[in-house]
Amino acid sequence: MALKTLHDAFVEQLRDVYSAEKQLVKALPRMIKAISNTALKEAVQAHLEETKMHVTRVEQAMESLDLKVRSIKCAAMEGLLEEGASLLEDEASPEVLDALIIAAAQKVEHYEIATYGTICTWARVLGHDPALALLKQNMADEEAADKKLTKISLTINKAAVKPREPAMQKN
Amino acid sequence: MALKTLHDAFVEQLRDVYSAEKQLVKALPRMIKAISNTALKEAVQAHLEETKMHVTRVEQAMESLDLKVRSIKCAAMEGLLEEGASLLEDEASPEVLDALIIAAAQKVEHYEIATYGTICTWARVLGHDPALALLKQNMADEEAADKKLTKISLTINKAAVKPREPAMQKN
Repeated sequence: MALKTLHDAFVEQLRDVYSAEKQLVKALPRMIKAISNTALKEAVQAHLEETKMHVTRVEQAMESLDLKVRSIKCAAMEGLLEEGASLLEDEASPEVLDALIIAAAQKVEHYEIATYGTICTWARVLGHDPALALLKQNMADEEAADKKLTKISLTINKAAVKPREPAMQKN
Repeated sequence: MALKTLHDAFVEQLRDVYSAEKQLVKALPRMIKAISNTALKEAVQAHLEETKMHVTRVEQAMESLDLKVRSIKCAAMEGLLEEGASLLEDEASPEVLDALIIAAAQKVEHYEIATYGTICTWARVLGHDPALALLKQNMADEEAADKKLTKISLTINKAAVKPREPAMQKN
């Protein structure tokens, strides 16, 4: 691919994040099923709905620049989700699995924050204002989701410190 | 792998980040060779030296807990570095390639910030104070590296907006 200008790089990264968001929409339902804690389950379910909106906003950003809506395979998100999926293979207690799912989700959020941080900066430098407005909304959602996960983790980490008592498993 | 407590999850994530840091030590020299901007080259070279120190600190954190020093393959870092390496295959102008290398490096930094954020929190909850002190130093380096890259990107992004003039290529 010939990339002569920052605009070319912007288009490439936009198509990369489009792939990343679509991969996440596919992967989250399996994660949600594996969660035990209600607050965490609801938060990730809500983020799945937001992620579907992110896909739409990235499509709109492409359309605002008269670009063909298409994705470039995001290998980084593939790796992140492969690692997330492998957690579900661990023989973990419910609390520990929830703690690990938060860890994996925050890695994904930070990855996306870095990506949107870059493409928002580039959109600003390039004067792509309608695209910038859309991408900033996605960025804000990712930052809010990350903060929410940190808050929920406080309870879950504490619950995961000690092994489950056999009696508790009946609850 | 049986993960009954948060400590078990902590050990798993420590071995994961050990793999991630070692992968980065191997990958950075190729990135550095591809960089044109002197300030960026120096910053990434300095971060390579820091990353070698991160590997040592993670080893020391394991030793502080009497753990066998070993890694668990970090699939997420593999994906991040695969994406970084694929940039070098693009036919990009030097300024655009530098901008893309910063983008890739910041994705890696944010990934590591998320990881250290989680394991520092877990070390605190678990009372693993010597490990916490070591991991916090790595975290601080990653945050500083991310900020430095943002600063350097200001000049590089501007230089990458317009295509190179043929005359400029002779300089």
